[in-house]
Amino acid sequence: MNYKENLQSLRRLMADNHVDAAIILHTDPHHSEYIAPHWQGRQWLSGFSGSAGHLLVTAEDAFLWTDSRYFLQAAEQLKESGVKLMKMGLPETPSMNEFLASTLRPGQRVGVDGMLMSRREAIELAEALSPDGIELDTAFDPLATIWLDRPSLSTSPIILHDAALAGATATEKLNDLRDHITTKHADGMLVSALDEIAWVLNIRSRDVKCNPVVTSHLFIPHEGDATLFVNLDKVTPEVAEYFASIGVTTLPYNNIKKFLGETTANTILADPTTVATTLLDIMGNKAVAATSPIVLAKAIKNPIQNEGMRAAHIRDGVALVKANMEIEQRLATGDHLTEMTVAEILRRHRSEREMFFDESFDPIIGFGSNGTIVHYSPSEESAATITPDNLLLMDSGAQYLDGTTDITRTISLGNTTPEQRHRFTLVLKGHIDVAMAVFPAGTCGTQLDILARQAMWREGLNYLHGTGHGVGHFLNVHEGPHQLRMNYVPTPLQPGMNVTDEPGLYFEGQYGIRCENVLLVQHAETPTGADFLCFEPLTMFPFDRRLIDTTMLSPEEIDWLDQYHARVLRTLSPLLDTPAERQWLALATSPLKK
Amino acid sequence: MNYKENLQSLRRLMADNHVDAAIILHTDPHHSEYIAPHWQGRQWLSGFSGSAGHLLVTAEDAFLWTDSRYFLQAAEQLKESGVKLMKMGLPETPSMNEFLASTLRPGQRVGVDGMLMSRREAIELAEALSPDGIELDTAFDPLATIWLDRPSLSTSPIILHDAALAGATATEKLNDLRDHITTKHADGMLVSALDEIAWVLNIRSRDVKCNPVVTSHLFIPHEGDATLFVNLDKVTPEVAEYFASIGVTTLPYNNIKKFLGETTANTILADPTTVATTLLDIMGNKAVAATSPIVLAKAIKNPIQNEGMRAAHIRDGVALVKANMEIEQRLATGDHLTEMTVAEILRRHRSEREMFFDESFDPIIGFGSNGTIVHYSPSEESAATITPDNLLLMDSGAQYLDGTTDITRTISLGNTTPEQRHRFTLVLKGHIDVAMAVFPAGTCGTQLDILARQAMWREGLNYLHGTGHGVGHFLNVHEGPHQLRMNYVPTPLQPGMNVTDEPGLYFEGQYGIRCENVLLVQHAETPTGADFLCFEPLTMFPFDRRLIDTTMLSPEEIDWLDQYHARVLRTLSPLLDTPAERQWLALATSPLKK
Repeated sequence: MNYKENLQSLRRLMADNHVDAAIILHTDPHHSEYIAPHWQGRQWLSGFSGSAGHLLVTAEDAFLWTDSRYFLQAAEQLKESGVKLMKMGLPETPSMNEFLASTLRPGQRVGVDGMLMSRREAIELAEALSPDGIELDTAFDPLATIWLDRPSLSTSPIILHDAALAGATATEKLNDLRDHITTKHADGMLVSALDEIAWVLNIRSRDVKCNPVVTSHLFIPHEGDATLFVNLDKVTPEVAEYFASIGVTTLPYNNIKKFLGETTANTILADPTTVATTLLDIMGNKAVAATSPIVLAKAIKNPIQNEGMRAAHIRDGVALVKANMEIEQRLATGDHLTEMTVAEILRRHRSEREMFFDESFDPIIGFGSNGTIVHYSPSEESAATITPDNLLLMDSGAQYLDGTTDITRTISLGNTTPEQRHRFTLVLKGHIDVAMAVFPAGTCGTQLDILARQAMWREGLNYLHGTGHGVGHFLNVHEGPHQLRMNYVPTPLQPGMNVTDEPGLYFEGQYGIRCENVLLVQHAETPTGADFLCFEPLTMFPFDRRLIDTTMLSPEEIDWLDQYHARVLRTLSPLLDTPAERQWLALATSPLKK
Repeated sequence: MNYKENLQSLRRLMADNHVDAAIILHTDPHHSEYIAPHWQGRQWLSGFSGSAGHLLVTAEDAFLWTDSRYFLQAAEQLKESGVKLMKMGLPETPSMNEFLASTLRPGQRVGVDGMLMSRREAIELAEALSPDGIELDTAFDPLATIWLDRPSLSTSPIILHDAALAGATATEKLNDLRDHITTKHADGMLVSALDEIAWVLNIRSRDVKCNPVVTSHLFIPHEGDATLFVNLDKVTPEVAEYFASIGVTTLPYNNIKKFLGETTANTILADPTTVATTLLDIMGNKAVAATSPIVLAKAIKNPIQNEGMRAAHIRDGVALVKANMEIEQRLATGDHLTEMTVAEILRRHRSEREMFFDESFDPIIGFGSNGTIVHYSPSEESAATITPDNLLLMDSGAQYLDGTTDITRTISLGNTTPEQRHRFTLVLKGHIDVAMAVFPAGTCGTQLDILARQAMWREGLNYLHGTGHGVGHFLNVHEGPHQLRMNYVPTPLQPGMNVTDEPGLYFEGQYGIRCENVLLVQHAETPTGADFLCFEPLTMFPFDRRLIDTTMLSPEEIDWLDQYHARVLRTLSPLLDTPAERQWLALATSPLKK
């Protein structure tokens, strides 16, 4: 890839369009966390492949803003393109908006593709530039012109997600949304978030790695057919028939702008956090900013979805028993295993399970000090060799047709030190204390978060990531609106929601520890009969007993763990294939209590 | 008191002023929680003496809105005036604003004294009325005219609060505020909150029961003398000399409006939560709404204030030993003790301590089922007789010249039941778990709150009040901006702040339980040296060992309690007067650990 040449193409187009600074955002027109190759133009221009970081190009220079997770990787990958690294979070680094305001002269113009920008971002940028007389053009979409070998929009066929697995038909969901639109005195609703569209219509695809979404926009009128804007190559005859049956018309993906410009609807609900500022501009006064009701409806899974989630986690547990045994056995026989090998083993065993569809994210397999990099993903160059001498952190998950999994285990493949056991048990205590929580309806994740941290805080230790996120049902592994975290998240936890429980500790240069199950929010049985909630662990795999310092656990914590392990054994054992597997699991789940 | 006649006087004035509905707010021009007799006009008109509840009077009718704490009391007290009770919180009860909007006709007028209303309340009221064409007059102050025997403004002399106790001079604090005003590019700052003024100027008085504040407004210009608007009868020659020495001019209390109307200052900072809407109206465009910097500065006590708080709590502890012994002894000898007697005993022993100034709130002495009323205050009519057969909840505190106390103990004066011990220990566990917390700098009270509730939540029990509030230094017993509570309070806890730790449980018809200490936020020593915080209990009095089910406490909780009790014994014992007192305390603080 000749990045310098690509940058020069951009600069020629900038000159033609009187654009003095071009912002190339790393996102898509749906504000997705994971994006399809079609929108990975920042990498095409700069060489940087990280999941976060925006590019700024001027006539003479180019700069990439990214955060500390990617400082090393970006420094390496940007060498060839000559793009300068702007290290976010350091006191001396200005924000991109500050940099633009202080660098450009009055009358100069900033170009950006407003299809990739939320309304709030657009307002903030305009407010940063206008006091200095700098102009903003949100209709500058250079990649459409200069990226000659740009990957096309995916043509991967749309897959129908069986209503028997979804627990509700698209018709039911569309009718609920039409009621919502009517209640809000609106004529229609525009949905751009890909997981929202997939949920409403019970469709999936393979447009984006690990996220089984369909690249599209959806317009739902208060009555009559909905319109899906989608690459028509993805619509098989079977899918076309399905769409006809549920009252969904299809139009080409890029027709969304024309459609919104010509629609006779006068009031259109649109969530400004996921609908692009360009589309809001086109709708003008017709657009009513409103949180999408789909976000909460999707987060609260129905009983059939939760049954699917349970089944998927059981299958995942069987795969993990086989994978962990393979890792131990190959290491014992002297095989050379790297983090990449471990990722392959995990994937292979999962892919052999029924209903497997994909991984749910790039596995984070961190041996020793690599385990301290929270979003680490091993590559051929970085992959460490696995030995018995340090801890192995494995954060991975899968998409099954009936549910999505996300599990982290930290294991030792050799002898453990008292310090390792002490630190591991601090993390495990936090995990268990969240899992054991009983709390009144109305409680939000910010209130529960401390349960995961209390033990480690007593020793002056902490982790700076959140404690948990929602997990989609055969959808995105990161899902809102609820979370468990120190920052304030107002959405209360509600029965049917799930949330990960993943405290961690990271010791630079040594190793990382994280313990993660997915928990389902359930009604709690209490003596008073009051409206209280509790958690049911969906994940089915033991925590490494070799790393537990039992003396640090309370009797209640030991009971919880022993009961959890007994349930894992009881649930998985009948599904294992060999006595050796059953024996391995029985040993791994044997009670701590004497 | 002839309430009906008083209401008729009001109605005549309403007719003269074309006011169709008059709102009589229960507050003062400083948004105080506790108010001086001068502003208790709602009681003069309606007979209702509760601490919360606003009155609405129309030509034919009158209504009082109050909450469930006061339903019984209000029903009784309103009989004579014929005012109708509007029970807040019940689904069928409209808010006062809704009631006005639905009852009045277009063109009719609502009158209210804007000196008693915050800006936000005024906006909400106007927004409720204007769609229906109802007019709002915020200059209607009927009490000034009709309340002929209205209590005057207090003439109680201003008392100087020694800078040696305050830990900072008024000059230092005024200079800090002038710097703040300059930083904000303003010309001055108006302060109406009474505890803020008392703190800035190191002055106290006896204008309001339990709250040693000086009824006044304070204007601080960015340079030159400040102006205190105060009843000049309160200014003794000594105080006048002090004011001259610190650059404070005095003007009559009621001159504030004229002064603001004529000031040449162009930009005046004013906190809209405590400055009256009338004063903001007078300032017009000159007023800049800004949170008062005094709130946070006052909450973070300096080392000298904290030393004073410690000393005050030790003196309070000595008084409580003597008081509790007297209660036990008089009950043993067959004396007839009521809740009122207990309140008298507590007050008497406190008032015999050095530096005693006043109680810090009306003591809540609730025996048996009276203990379930969270804001109960015994009266001659209500006071229950104390017996050995039930629990006694005592929530009380004092103002000393060097600090303010607030303590709740729940005790048994006879045999306890397993159920009482179980429930008491749930509350005590919550108290201890907050007190033991170690947390990183930046943590807010919402995050810690669950520690107080976790044990009782497991049994489906909860309490609906907050877990803790700040306590002033020889000032108001309720002080912000930080709190411990389920609702979101963004202000982080910071070293030097104090906060109460007062979980409770209330069993209707049976008894109430609450355990409360005041905790001081301190830097924590952690192995990592990271910036972590912890709590030091300031309160010095044992929890009732007879009510503790030791089997429900973790080893860490037992250690905490034994160490706390050992410290109480070590600290108070040398200050007690008799061997019997020392023996009583030694028994009450003997370790739980075998």
